Amino acid sequence: MNYLKKVVLVSFCAFFSISLMAQTHPSLMLTKANVAAVRKGVTTYPLLRQSYQTVKNAADKALAEPIVVPVPKDGGGGYTHEQHKKNYSNMLSAATAYQISGQKKYADYVKNVLLNYASQYEKWPLHPKRKSEDDGGRIFWQSLNDFVWQIYTIQAYDLVYDGLPAADRKTIEEKLFVPILKFFTEDRYEVFNKIHNHGTWNLAAVGITGYVLNKKEYVETAIKGSKKDGKTGYLAQIDQLFSPDGYYMEGPYYQRYALLPFVLFAKAINNYEPSRKIFEYRDKLLSKAIQTSLQTSYTDKTFFPINDAIKDKTYESIELVYGVDLAYADIKPEVDLLDIAKQQNRVIVSDAGLKVAADLAAGKAVPFKYQTLFIKDGAKGEDGGLGILRSGANTDQQAVLIKAASQGMGHGHFDRLGLLFYDNTTEIFPDYGAARFLNIDTKNGGGYLPENNTYAKQTVAHNALVVDETSHFNAKVGPADKTSPNLLYFSNQPNLKIVSAKEAKAYADVTMIRTSALVKVDGLEKPLLIDVMQALSAKNHQYDLPFWYKGQLVNTSFPIKAKADGLTALGNNNGYQHLWLNASNKLDVKAGLVGLLNKNRFYTTHFASDNPLEVKLVSIGANDPEMNLVDGKAFMLSSNGQNQTFASITETHGGTDPINETVSSALPSISELTIVKSDAQQTVVSFKLKGKIYTYQINYNDKQNYISFK
Amino acid sequence: MNYLKKVVLVSFCAFFSISLMAQTHPSLMLTKANVAAVRKGVTTYPLLRQSYQTVKNAADKALAEPIVVPVPKDGGGGYTHEQHKKNYSNMLSAATAYQISGQKKYADYVKNVLLNYASQYEKWPLHPKRKSEDDGGRIFWQSLNDFVWQIYTIQAYDLVYDGLPAADRKTIEEKLFVPILKFFTEDRYEVFNKIHNHGTWNLAAVGITGYVLNKKEYVETAIKGSKKDGKTGYLAQIDQLFSPDGYYMEGPYYQRYALLPFVLFAKAINNYEPSRKIFEYRDKLLSKAIQTSLQTSYTDKTFFPINDAIKDKTYESIELVYGVDLAYADIKPEVDLLDIAKQQNRVIVSDAGLKVAADLAAGKAVPFKYQTLFIKDGAKGEDGGLGILRSGANTDQQAVLIKAASQGMGHGHFDRLGLLFYDNTTEIFPDYGAARFLNIDTKNGGGYLPENNTYAKQTVAHNALVVDETSHFNAKVGPADKTSPNLLYFSNQPNLKIVSAKEAKAYADVTMIRTSALVKVDGLEKPLLIDVMQALSAKNHQYDLPFWYKGQLVNTSFPIKAKADGLTALGNNNGYQHLWLNASNKLDVKAGLVGLLNKNRFYTTHFASDNPLEVKLVSIGANDPEMNLVDGKAFMLSSNGQNQTFASITETHGGTDPINETVSSALPSISELTIVKSDAQQTVVSFKLKGKIYTYQINYNDKQNYISFK
Repeated sequence: MNYLKKVVLVSFCAFFSISLMAQTHPSLMLTKANVAAVRKGVTTYPLLRQSYQTVKNAADKALAEPIVVPVPKDGGGGYTHEQHKKNYSNMLSAATAYQISGQKKYADYVKNVLLNYASQYEKWPLHPKRKSEDDGGRIFWQSLNDFVWQIYTIQAYDLVYDGLPAADRKTIEEKLFVPILKFFTEDRYEVFNKIHNHGTWNLAAVGITGYVLNKKEYVETAIKGSKKDGKTGYLAQIDQLFSPDGYYMEGPYYQRYALLPFVLFAKAINNYEPSRKIFEYRDKLLSKAIQTSLQTSYTDKTFFPINDAIKDKTYESIELVYGVDLAYADIKPEVDLLDIAKQQNRVIVSDAGLKVAADLAAGKAVPFKYQTLFIKDGAKGEDGGLGILRSGANTDQQAVLIKAASQGMGHGHFDRLGLLFYDNTTEIFPDYGAARFLNIDTKNGGGYLPENNTYAKQTVAHNALVVDETSHFNAKVGPADKTSPNLLYFSNQPNLKIVSAKEAKAYADVTMIRTSALVKVDGLEKPLLIDVMQALSAKNHQYDLPFWYKGQLVNTSFPIKAKADGLTALGNNNGYQHLWLNASNKLDVKAGLVGLLNKNRFYTTHFASDNPLEVKLVSIGANDPEMNLVDGKAFMLSSNGQNQTFASITETHGGTDPINETVSSALPSISELTIVKSDAQQTVVSFKLKGKIYTYQINYNDKQNYISFK
Repeated sequence: MNYLKKVVLVSFCAFFSISLMAQTHPSLMLTKANVAAVRKGVTTYPLLRQSYQTVKNAADKALAEPIVVPVPKDGGGGYTHEQHKKNYSNMLSAATAYQISGQKKYADYVKNVLLNYASQYEKWPLHPKRKSEDDGGRIFWQSLNDFVWQIYTIQAYDLVYDGLPAADRKTIEEKLFVPILKFFTEDRYEVFNKIHNHGTWNLAAVGITGYVLNKKEYVETAIKGSKKDGKTGYLAQIDQLFSPDGYYMEGPYYQRYALLPFVLFAKAINNYEPSRKIFEYRDKLLSKAIQTSLQTSYTDKTFFPINDAIKDKTYESIELVYGVDLAYADIKPEVDLLDIAKQQNRVIVSDAGLKVAADLAAGKAVPFKYQTLFIKDGAKGEDGGLGILRSGANTDQQAVLIKAASQGMGHGHFDRLGLLFYDNTTEIFPDYGAARFLNIDTKNGGGYLPENNTYAKQTVAHNALVVDETSHFNAKVGPADKTSPNLLYFSNQPNLKIVSAKEAKAYADVTMIRTSALVKVDGLEKPLLIDVMQALSAKNHQYDLPFWYKGQLVNTSFPIKAKADGLTALGNNNGYQHLWLNASNKLDVKAGLVGLLNKNRFYTTHFASDNPLEVKLVSIGANDPEMNLVDGKAFMLSSNGQNQTFASITETHGGTDPINETVSSALPSISELTIVKSDAQQTVVSFKLKGKIYTYQINYNDKQNYISFK
């Protein structure tokens, strides 16, 4: 009898473990068992103290203002949009302050905001500013923002749960959260089951809400999809949206954004059902995704802005604060993550934040380990990837990115084998990013501008090869999504870091191979960026290779002769219509140089071609009636022929000291860059440095001896 | 007998006091009596320790390299130019290291460099790159650099004097310093006696060298001029180059530069002949000059870049490090100067640096007291001046500068009543500064570019009123130097800071009055910049008022309709030829607005005119064959009429948070800006804010009630 009772009880517990766990609040980022420790940590560890102070200040500010829950009306950046964002942010701040301070006023604030929403939500129809019936929200113009709202709000609710009267909880759940769950899973069924970041936000909101409200049916569908067959849902998203290296095909900007629902839901799953071992799933995929997100940033904290990206986005972004805290506390305590946490200058006031702040205070941080690596793209890791070369300490690092990844769907840019170059904690050869003023209503409602399609996505807006003034894949997403570049070679040696990749489908009859390397040479302080772009074709083509640059032109091997008056657009289409042709110079020889001054340092790009060469100097701004585009300048190497190779060496040298008014090494050290030979087997270039002739040879068909440099 | 002996001895001492003092080395920035204390301070006070470490590192680096004293050959920024600069800098570092460490190797280094110069100097003719026979140097292309060289070198010599064998001293003095003194005072007699910063450098070099070499004849001529009649020389320079407020007519960039010989020579005079009370001279003029130099900087540390100015010059510049250290230690220990020293992050390893570092370590610093003030220009303070309005803490300060000063000779720009506006530690309405890449040989030898005259000096390059597309005084220095604007009114109240000034001579038949104010209004976080530019004339004219801006245009009250293709220059001359006309918009009404986003903050300029209004959007770059000009954009208010008033209110509001992707107050709060009335007696403007109508009235003829605002 006793025995039977025990068995029944155990079975009962196992069966209802979710339900039982769910009785404990809070149980997400901050758990009941750790509240006392976090309260103590807030008085002990500087970063946690300061992070809590920020949260508490926000909470106090919120409490001092009247509660406003407006009927949804405005689009992105507009008043009601920003107010509803403010509300979820305020609720989470107040709810956190409630747990740490124990002061009921904070819980009351959250209660009152939620009751206000509960009194209105069911009356709200689809948002009047929705762009389609399929993805409109009710609180916001797009349902995505509703999902985000719910993810923050449910956390706040979990934190104040114990401080609310049961009757109010009932009202809030029945009049707000249950209708929201219904809206997300039924009205937004398509989104819920879509393998896409909107889907992730939706199902994470549903899943976490399911845990907190103890509605395990919702948890199950969130994890395995509406049909519970695993073809959609959270696990399918982890399987399909990330590469085995944890790369998210839309690129770092969206990877950062997509990450948050993944890690928050993972944390919830881990707390409620640790037996699922979610952090172990797919060979620790979530940990890799966080790591890869950091590896796709530069030392100025910004993410590499490939594809549609807001350029000033950094890893200080809240998603990465969650990511880094959880990666360190819940997955693996790699001490270089503490460096990132220090740079972020905040932690989440939570179990994880406590651990990070404590270990930072204990002095465990070491500089973040930026790596030279090739990050594979594609669910199976077979769709190209990003080649990232790095050299130097984090305080003054050179970084080169070659984009040999897949298209990344609708937010992808047509910049196969595009190159980015960074040095001295700044951009040297930048990416334009997206044409968008995020959330600024006067600029197309804060959404993507028309020039995002007509310019920012086009090939010529990138440091990528343009053939016959048309973009890769004619700028069509469909065909572009079907194919990816191939990695030919990758190597990471101390003095020779190389990535070489091929793109054969972007144009009908041209194969492009780009081989970029950071090469340390005796007697030079900084590595050389040696870049060889080879195009092979049976037909004649016009080849344009732009180098978008920051800084000021201070040296050229040819007379610039910029156009004095009557500036015209460089072309009619494919982004060319947005470029002013400031100067064009047909060179007498097949080589030359351009010298730049950027952030008090000199950069000279020596270049050579195997066909006659023209250098065009262009700037952004033509055919832009609303002045939507931001400034930018490029020198563009132009040539005509069948096969075409552009070789360039970018030398980093000397600098100016404006405080002391001194200049050092204003002139480059390299000279006589020449293409000795370039065909399908080999490219051989030579240059002179301090009296010595160096030869750099690429053997395209010899993986054992791909590069020889002597 | 005894008494006589005493008298003789006393007389002897008085007579030879200079000589006797001169026997002591070192006796300039670092004095023998203080060496022990500075040595101790270097181990005690962080800023002195760190400053010495920098000096010692430089010295050690110098000692590790071969001594190179090349035959002078290159112009500014070229190899021999930079090497000779490096030599004096290295000698001073090594000499300082000698005094602090006591290690003879440092003195030996200085000795060897000096002996090398002594072995060659007399053979060097005038520099081959000199631009004229009158001001060519022998070590450098212009004698100015020779003077600077000597000022640094003589300090180094003084520091190592006791460590050199007498025979070497003899060689160095006879073969190097004496010929230099002769060159400076005889071959460069004109410069020596010119009331101009080149003259100051010359005589300070001569005077300090005279003290150190105990040649008081040279000291006398340095102080009183070659004829010793006081019409030229150091005291005459102090009398004539500075205004009673310590303003140097060429502007802050050159004031900073001119300051160093003044303060170094003053320190030498004070050490050798304290009885001259040089720091008290002309009502403590030198102290005022240092203070004014700081007051003409913004909180981003840069000097207001009016006239020819290199824009990234800050008060971290060595001249101000000397200035601040001496002002604090030798003139008056104002504790807010310690804040500047802290920002400079270095002190001179010297008596003064010791005191500054010690007091900083003792926690005596308070934030630097930026003031709202009118700085008078002209030797008698009668030639206009600079009106500077400030509001807010140093961490987020608004600053407005109205340039109502004299022309400032050849480096002056034609920007009477020009306006600069700063906020959020950045430029909002900037000054172009000089068209020059200092010391970059590939850009016109590092000197001023042709576009400095054709563009940077012209009125249209500034936030100043242009009449009939011609510059003030037709851009002729002669007539411009003869006259200055008049200050009409200045007021500094907590909520209303105003400067109003008149310029009646810049154009033959137009009188301009500009009245600019920072006005705090209830309910707005930041003050409003209310700017009224009135032009009075009996004839019809074209009036253009450009607002050069930083940041991105995000809002306009009119359709922008930027030119799609075929961009043309705005005009043919007076700087207009360098502007592209991107858009022109004839407004239906006499008012409008332009909204900007700059460093994540919004600025909306509301404007109104009493004649029909056209808004032109322009950018820099036309007729610039070598691409010498840097980027810049302006909106330009244009109108035609006899009298013309442009009223504008620039509202600072809201902002974007790119990390958290939020936007606040993207739209302005003000509306309905209207010119109610504007004539020679009054200008009345009104605007609406939060339902209330405000009236801002200028009474040009009523000094007791100049502005009324309600």
